[in-house]
Amino acid sequence: MAGDRDASDATAAAEAELRAGFETLAVTRPDPSAGVYEVRLNRPAQRNALSPAAFAEIPRAMSLLDRIPTARAVVLSAAGPHFCAGIELGGPGDPLAAGAGDPVAAAEALRRAVLDMQGALTAIERCRKPVVAAVHGACVGGGVDVVAACDIRCCSRDATFVLKEVDMAIVADLGALQRLPRIVGYGNAADLALTGRKITAMEAKEMGLVTRVFDSKKELDAGVAKIAKEIAEKSAWAVMGTKAVLLRSRDVTVEQGLEHVATWNAGMMRSNDLKEAIRAFLEKRKPVFSKL
Amino acid sequence: MAGDRDASDATAAAEAELRAGFETLAVTRPDPSAGVYEVRLNRPAQRNALSPAAFAEIPRAMSLLDRIPTARAVVLSAAGPHFCAGIELGGPGDPLAAGAGDPVAAAEALRRAVLDMQGALTAIERCRKPVVAAVHGACVGGGVDVVAACDIRCCSRDATFVLKEVDMAIVADLGALQRLPRIVGYGNAADLALTGRKITAMEAKEMGLVTRVFDSKKELDAGVAKIAKEIAEKSAWAVMGTKAVLLRSRDVTVEQGLEHVATWNAGMMRSNDLKEAIRAFLEKRKPVFSKL
Amino acid sequence: MAGDRDASDATAAAEAELRAGFETLAVTRPDPSAGVYEVRLNRPAQRNALSPAAFAEIPRAMSLLDRIPTARAVVLSAAGPHFCAGIELGGPGDPLAAGAGDPVAAAEALRRAVLDMQGALTAIERCRKPVVAAVHGACVGGGVDVVAACDIRCCSRDATFVLKEVDMAIVADLGALQRLPRIVGYGNAADLALTGRKITAMEAKEMGLVTRVFDSKKELDAGVAKIAKEIAEKSAWAVMGTKAVLLRSRDVTVEQGLEHVATWNAGMMRSNDLKEAIRAFLEKRKPVFSKL
Amino acid sequence: MAGDRDASDATAAAEAELRAGFETLAVTRPDPSAGVYEVRLNRPAQRNALSPAAFAEIPRAMSLLDRIPTARAVVLSAAGPHFCAGIELGGPGDPLAAGAGDPVAAAEALRRAVLDMQGALTAIERCRKPVVAAVHGACVGGGVDVVAACDIRCCSRDATFVLKEVDMAIVADLGALQRLPRIVGYGNAADLALTGRKITAMEAKEMGLVTRVFDSKKELDAGVAKIAKEIAEKSAWAVMGTKAVLLRSRDVTVEQGLEHVATWNAGMMRSNDLKEAIRAFLEKRKPVFSKL
Amino acid sequence: MAGDRDASDATAAAEAELRAGFETLAVTRPDPSAGVYEVRLNRPAQRNALSPAAFAEIPRAMSLLDRIPTARAVVLSAAGPHFCAGIELGGPGDPLAAGAGDPVAAAEALRRAVLDMQGALTAIERCRKPVVAAVHGACVGGGVDVVAACDIRCCSRDATFVLKEVDMAIVADLGALQRLPRIVGYGNAADLALTGRKITAMEAKEMGLVTRVFDSKKELDAGVAKIAKEIAEKSAWAVMGTKAVLLRSRDVTVEQGLEHVATWNAGMMRSNDLKEAIRAFLEKRKPVFSKL
Amino acid sequence: MAGDRDASDATAAAEAELRAGFETLAVTRPDPSAGVYEVRLNRPAQRNALSPAAFAEIPRAMSLLDRIPTARAVVLSAAGPHFCAGIELGGPGDPLAAGAGDPVAAAEALRRAVLDMQGALTAIERCRKPVVAAVHGACVGGGVDVVAACDIRCCSRDATFVLKEVDMAIVADLGALQRLPRIVGYGNAADLALTGRKITAMEAKEMGLVTRVFDSKKELDAGVAKIAKEIAEKSAWAVMGTKAVLLRSRDVTVEQGLEHVATWNAGMMRSNDLKEAIRAFLEKRKPVFSKL
Repeated sequence: MAGDRDASDATAAAEAELRAGFETLAVTRPDPSAGVYEVRLNRPAQRNALSPAAFAEIPRAMSLLDRIPTARAVVLSAAGPHFCAGIELGGPGDPLAAGAGDPVAAAEALRRAVLDMQGALTAIERCRKPVVAAVHGACVGGGVDVVAACDIRCCSRDATFVLKEVDMAIVADLGALQRLPRIVGYGNAADLALTGRKITAMEAKEMGLVTRVFDSKKELDAGVAKIAKEIAEKSAWAVMGTKAVLLRSRDVTVEQGLEHVATWNAGMMRSNDLKEAIRAFLEKRKPVFSKL
Repeated sequence: MAGDRDASDATAAAEAELRAGFETLAVTRPDPSAGVYEVRLNRPAQRNALSPAAFAEIPRAMSLLDRIPTARAVVLSAAGPHFCAGIELGGPGDPLAAGAGDPVAAAEALRRAVLDMQGALTAIERCRKPVVAAVHGACVGGGVDVVAACDIRCCSRDATFVLKEVDMAIVADLGALQRLPRIVGYGNAADLALTGRKITAMEAKEMGLVTRVFDSKKELDAGVAKIAKEIAEKSAWAVMGTKAVLLRSRDVTVEQGLEHVATWNAGMMRSNDLKEAIRAFLEKRKPVFSKL
Repeated sequence: MAGDRDASDATAAAEAELRAGFETLAVTRPDPSAGVYEVRLNRPAQRNALSPAAFAEIPRAMSLLDRIPTARAVVLSAAGPHFCAGIELGGPGDPLAAGAGDPVAAAEALRRAVLDMQGALTAIERCRKPVVAAVHGACVGGGVDVVAACDIRCCSRDATFVLKEVDMAIVADLGALQRLPRIVGYGNAADLALTGRKITAMEAKEMGLVTRVFDSKKELDAGVAKIAKEIAEKSAWAVMGTKAVLLRSRDVTVEQGLEHVATWNAGMMRSNDLKEAIRAFLEKRKPVFSKL
Repeated sequence: MAGDRDASDATAAAEAELRAGFETLAVTRPDPSAGVYEVRLNRPAQRNALSPAAFAEIPRAMSLLDRIPTARAVVLSAAGPHFCAGIELGGPGDPLAAGAGDPVAAAEALRRAVLDMQGALTAIERCRKPVVAAVHGACVGGGVDVVAACDIRCCSRDATFVLKEVDMAIVADLGALQRLPRIVGYGNAADLALTGRKITAMEAKEMGLVTRVFDSKKELDAGVAKIAKEIAEKSAWAVMGTKAVLLRSRDVTVEQGLEHVATWNAGMMRSNDLKEAIRAFLEKRKPVFSKL
Repeated sequence: MAGDRDASDATAAAEAELRAGFETLAVTRPDPSAGVYEVRLNRPAQRNALSPAAFAEIPRAMSLLDRIPTARAVVLSAAGPHFCAGIELGGPGDPLAAGAGDPVAAAEALRRAVLDMQGALTAIERCRKPVVAAVHGACVGGGVDVVAACDIRCCSRDATFVLKEVDMAIVADLGALQRLPRIVGYGNAADLALTGRKITAMEAKEMGLVTRVFDSKKELDAGVAKIAKEIAEKSAWAVMGTKAVLLRSRDVTVEQGLEHVATWNAGMMRSNDLKEAIRAFLEKRKPVFSKL
Repeated sequence: MAGDRDASDATAAAEAELRAGFETLAVTRPDPSAGVYEVRLNRPAQRNALSPAAFAEIPRAMSLLDRIPTARAVVLSAAGPHFCAGIELGGPGDPLAAGAGDPVAAAEALRRAVLDMQGALTAIERCRKPVVAAVHGACVGGGVDVVAACDIRCCSRDATFVLKEVDMAIVADLGALQRLPRIVGYGNAADLALTGRKITAMEAKEMGLVTRVFDSKKELDAGVAKIAKEIAEKSAWAVMGTKAVLLRSRDVTVEQGLEHVATWNAGMMRSNDLKEAIRAFLEKRKPVFSKL
C-alpha cells in the first residue's frame, strides 16, 4: 500500500517535472491516450547544437521518462530544418576553454567533461523504454552520437549524416566510434569517421545506420509515431526486457548472453501480460496488456 | 586397429539411430554418393512449431551428424508451406505451465528449461559440419532463433521473418538477441526485436540475415543442395576448422582470434588433403579429398 | 633540441630506407606536396602473390611510413591486372615444407610462421596513418586478409574477392576469419569462408566489404588518391587518434571504449590544430593544420 | 501435478542409477537423514588413476547428483592411501595411442578427447550443488585438475599436490592452468606448473589452494562431512545461486557480474526459504528450509 | 576566471552539504590541516546496519568527497562496538516487502532495488580519492560488500568477517561475489560464501582480505589515520590516477590495461607535481605537492 | 635440409650477438653443459637503474634467448648490492624531457615512449623460455615491473620491494598495476601501489609476489640456478607450452582457455619427448629429452 503510494507520488513528481519544461528540449505527449512521449531537440535557431544545457537536460528527460509508467516508448526528434549541428563550440562552460593552470588539472577536467557528456547520451540507453530517433535535415557530429545511442533510427529522405569531428581536428568522443561499428560494421564506420564524408538517407539505410527512410518530414513524423505507438501497445515488460537484453548481449560472449537472458526470463516471464497474450492468441483477438 | 573398429562401430550405431527416425524431423541423405544430409522440420500440420520433442530431437540429430563421417554438410529445411511457427505453446511439458509451489522453484525450473532449449539450438553450432538453412514461407519467433544458429542462410522469395516474441509478451530467449546483432548489426536487430515487424526475403538479404534468395521453393532446394554438395566435396578438415575458428573468433579479441587460428593450424595444417590440394592445383585438376 | 635533431635524423633515415626500395613493393609519393604515400604490391608477373619477401617488406614499409612525418595517409594498391593471388605456395621458406623431424617441432615452427605472417598484416593496423586499399581485378585468399586489415576499402567494378583457402584444404589463418565478420557480419563472412565463392565488386559493396566502387581502374586510382589526399589535409592528430580509438573499441565493451576515448582526448585534445580548426570555422575558411 | 509426477519419476530414476553403481567410483549417502552424498574415487590399487571409465563416470555421477533433490552438498574423496595419481597412461582408449593415418585426423581426435576429458571435470562445476574436495595422500597431475574444479578444497596434513604434467613432457590440459591461477594467483600457479614441484598441505593452505587442513585423514573425513552437512542444511536455493553466481562472475567484468546477480535475485529472491530465514532470525531459532 | 569561480562555488556548496550532515553517517575532517576525511557509519545502536537511508547517504558522501579538493584520502570506519551488521531487514522501504501485484513488476522492482544498492557501494570506487576501510568488531554480510569496494582494508585484532547472506537464504548481491574473488582468490571466496563461516582478523590477513591488522581499535584508528595522511600528502594526481588505472585494469586484458595506462599518462604525466617530485628527489627533501 | 641450415645459421648469429655483449646487461651461460642462461642487470654503480639503453637491451636479449635452442631457461638477476632502482630519471632520452611544441605532440611522444618501455618488459613474457627472477637488495619502481613480467620470482631474505612511482608523482605505467593484482590479489596490489610502502621478502612471500625466499644472496643464486637447471632438463616443448598457455589463459574465460589448450595439445602433444617420458616412466629412469 505505502509502496504503491510512494510509487504514485514519485510518478506525479516526475510528471510535474516534465511539465515544468526544459530550456533546450520540448517534451510532449502528443496523444494523451497513448504511451508515447516525444522529446524534441528545440533550439532550431542554433540548429539544435548541443549546449551544456542540452547535455544536462537530455539525461534528465530520459530519467523522468524511465520513471513515468505512462511512458512506454519515446520519440526523439528535432525542431527546425535540421536535426542537430553537433556540439556547440565556444559557449560558456565549453570544456575546451579550461586551459590555464597545471596541465594535468586541465587534462583531468577535460576527461571528466567528456565522461559527463558521454553519460548524457548513454542515458538514452539507460532509459528502459525504447527510443526511436526521427532524423531529418542535417545530423552532424554529436548529433550522430545521439542517434547511435537510440534503439531504432528512422529518417526522412532529405536527411544527411556526417561525422564532422575529424574536420574539427578532434577525435569523436561521444560514442560514435564505439556504437557505430556495431551498427554498420567496421568498414563503414571507419570510412565515415576518417573521411568525415556526408552520407544521404539512402546510404544510411544501405549500411544499416537507419532502418527506415520516409519520403518527407511529415511522413517521417507519422511513421515514427506509428512505430512508437505500436511499441507502446505491446507488453511493457517484454519491450523493456528486450531492450535490456539486447544491450547486455552487445558486450558479452554469446554463451554469456544466452545465460543472461535465461536468468532474466526466470524472474520476468511470469507476467499477467504473458497470460493475456496467450489468451488473446487463442481467442484470436488483440491482447490488452497491463499498465505499468 | 581396435580404435578403428571402435570408431566404425560408433559410426554404424549413429547411422542406425538416424535411420530409426524421429518424431518431428525427417533426416535423409538425398544422394547416397554425396556427403550431404538433410534435416527437415517435419510437422507441417503444426507449421513445424517447436515442440518439446523437437527440442530433444534437433540436438540428437546434430550430434549424430557430427559423428557420422559421411556427413560433411547439413541442410536444414522444413516440410509444408512454412518453415517454422516458433515455439509451441500450451503443449504438454510447456515450461510456462510450471507454476505452483515455491516461486523460486518455478523460476529455477523455467531458467533450466530455457537453458535446455537454448542448448538444443546451440547444438547446430556444436555440430562441426556446416549447416545450411533453407527457409521458405513464414519463419516466426523460435524459427528465427533456429536459423540464426545455422552457418549459412538461404531463402526463397516468399520467405518472411518475424521476431514474434515481443508480441507474445516475452523476451526472445533462444539466441536471436545474441546472434542476430552479429549477423545484421545492432540497428537492424533492435528494430526487428522491438517492433516484431515482418520482413521479406529481400529485406533479409539486404541486411545480411540471408546471403542468397532463390525465386521459388524448388530453386531454393536445388540451390541449397548445390551449395551443400560443394561444401561436402571440399576438405572436411578445412571446412570443420573454418567453422570452428569463425565461431571462436566471434567471442574473443582479434588478437586472441589470430593466436587461436595459428595454434589450430599448427596441429591441423598437415593433412593429406592439403598435399592433394597443392598437387591438384599444380596439375590443374579438381582435388579428391580424403574421407573422414 | 637534441630530441628534435634525433627525431629528424630518424625521419631522414626512414626516408632513405624507403627510397632504397623493396623487392616486392613499390613505395612512392606521387605528389611531393601532399602527404600521401602509395604502397604498391609489385610483382605483377606473379599476380602479386604474397612471398616470404612480401611478408617481410609489408611490415617494414608500414613501420617506415608510421615514422615519416610527411606520410599522413597511405594508399595500398597493386600493379598488373590483379590485386593479389594470395599466399605463394611452394616457394623457398614455405612453412609447409618444414616437415621432417619431431612433429612438435614442425607444429611449433608452423605456428610461429603463421604468427609472423599475421603480424605482417597487423602492421597495417599498427601504422598510425590510415591505409586505403584500392583493389582491382582478382583479390584472392591472403589478398583478402591484406585488405581486411586496411582502414578503408575501395575497388573498381571489375574487382572480385574470394576466400580461396578452404579450397586449398586449409583454414584461413591471416585474419579474414577474425576481421571480416566485424566488417560484413557473421552471416556473410561464414558464407564466403565456407563456400569459397567469388563475389563481385557490387556484392562486396552491398555487404560492406568495400565502401566505394569506381567504374574503372583509372577512376579507382583517382578516387582513392582523392580520399587519401583529403585525409592527409586533415589534422594528423585527429586522424591518427580516430584510427587508434576505432581499433581499440573493436575489442572492448562500449563502456570501456567510451572511457578509453575520454582518456585519450584528455591528453590529445589540446593541439594547435584544434585551435586552428575553431578559428577557421569561425572565419569560414579552410584550416591549415600543423605538420607532424 | 503431471509435472510433479514427472519430476519425481526422474528423481527415482536418477537414484536408481546412482544405486546401480559405478566401476571407478563409490557414491554413497552416509547419513540418510542428511542431504550429503559422497563421491569416492574408488580404484585404490591404481591410486585412483583417472581411467577412461573414470572420465565417463565422474560427469554421470555429477549429473545425477545435480538432479536428485535430496543431494544438497557433495563430498569428493578417495579410497586408499592416495587421492589420485593423475591420468592413467597406456590403457585401452588412451588418446595418445591414436597415431596412425592422416596426421590431422589424429590431431582432431586428440583435441576432441581432451575436450571430452575437460568436460568431465567441468561437470563438477555444472553440478549446481557445492562439491567439497577432501584430499589426502598424493594428489598428482589430473588429480589437481579435479580438485581445482571443486568449490571448496580441504586436505589432511599428509596431503601433497604436484602438477606432474610438465615432467611427463606434456602441457597440463584439464583445467589446472586455467583454474589454479584464479585460486592461488599467477605467481604460485606458474611456479607449480613450470617446475612440477610437490607442495605440502601447509604450503597449499598458505597459497589458498586449500582453505582448511586437518590433522589426519580421519579428522579430514569428519571435518568435510561437517562442512557439507552445514551446507546441506542451508537454503538450497541460496546455496545453488551462490555457486552459480560465483562461477559466472569469474569470467565477466565486475559491472557485468553485479548486473547478473541483480537479475538472478529478481527471479530467485522470493523463496519460502527467505521468509523462513527472516522468521527464524526474528524468533532467534534455527531455520528449517524447504526440500527441493 | 569564471571557471575558477564556478569550481570554487561548487566546492563551497559541496562542503556546506557535507557539514549539513547525514542521518546514518558522521563525516568529519579530524585534522583541518590534512587532506583526510573520515566517513563513519554512525548508527551504533543498530550495529550500523545498512538502512535505506545509508544506501542513499553513502554515495552522496562519496560524491561530495570526490568533488571537494581538500579531500585527498578517505577513511571509512564505524561507531560503536561493531563495524556493520549488514543490510537492515524489515525496515520501511525494504525491497523484499514489495510483493503484491504482477510478479514481473515485483521482480523488476527487486532488480532495480538491488542495482541501486550495488550502485551505492560502487560509489566508493567512483570516488577518485582512495578509501581506506578501518574495520573492528563484527563485519557481517553487506558490511563485507562495503569493505570489498574500498581500496585498502585494515582491521583490529578483534575484527571478524562473515558472508552471512547464505544463512539468510539469499545470494549475496552487493558485490562480495564479484570483488572478493579478485582480492582473496576463488578458493577462499567460495569457502566464505558457501559456508557463511566467520573468519578472524588473522585469517583475513592471511588470505589478503585485509592488508594490515592492528592490536586494538585505538591503534587501528591511529594506524589508518597515518596511512590516509601519508596518501593525502602525495601528489593527488598520481594517487587518483593509480586508483583509476587499477580499477580499469581489473576488467580488461593485460595488453589493454597497458595501453590504457600509457594513454592515461600521455595526458596526465605533465603535472607540476612531477617536476616538484624530481626537484625534491634531487635536492633530497620531501616534496610539497600542489593543492587540487 | 636448407631449412635446417637456415635455422642453424640463425642460431649461430644469435649466439654471436649475445657474445658481442651489452652495455647494461651481462648475459652468460654459467654451465656450458646446461641450458640455463643468466641475464644480469649490470650497472651496479647506478643500482641497475633502467636507462634507455636497458630498455633497448632487455627485449633484444630476450629475443635472442628465445631463438637460441640451447637456452631452455633464463635467470634474471642483478649485479651489486641492489636489484634495481627503477627508471633512471633525467638521463638523455628521458621522455619527460620532451616538453616544447604542440602539447599533443608531446603527449603522443610520451604515450609512444611508455608503450615502448612496456614492450621492453613484455618481451620477458614473449620469450618462450621461462624466466626466473632472482631478487636481492632493493627492488624499486620499474624494478617491480620487471619482476612482475617474469614467470617465477625468488628472492633473498634481504630483498625489499616498493612501488615508488606514486611518490614520484606518477602513475606506475610499466605493468605493475596490470600484472601484480593477478599475482597478489587486488587488495595487496592496491595497498602497495597507493601507499608506496616497502615490503620485506617475507611479506612478499606471504602475498605470493615471490614463491621462495633464500637466506642469503649466495643461497639465492644457487637455489635459482637449481630451479632453472631442473626446468632446462625438462621437455622444452612442454615447458614452452605451459608458459604460453598460462599467459593466454590469463586474459580469456576459463572455457576459452580450456579450448585453447585442447587446440594447443592437438598439435603439440606428439613429441618424441612424450614417448621418451612414458618410456622412462615405465622403465623407472630419468628421461632424456630432445634438444631443440
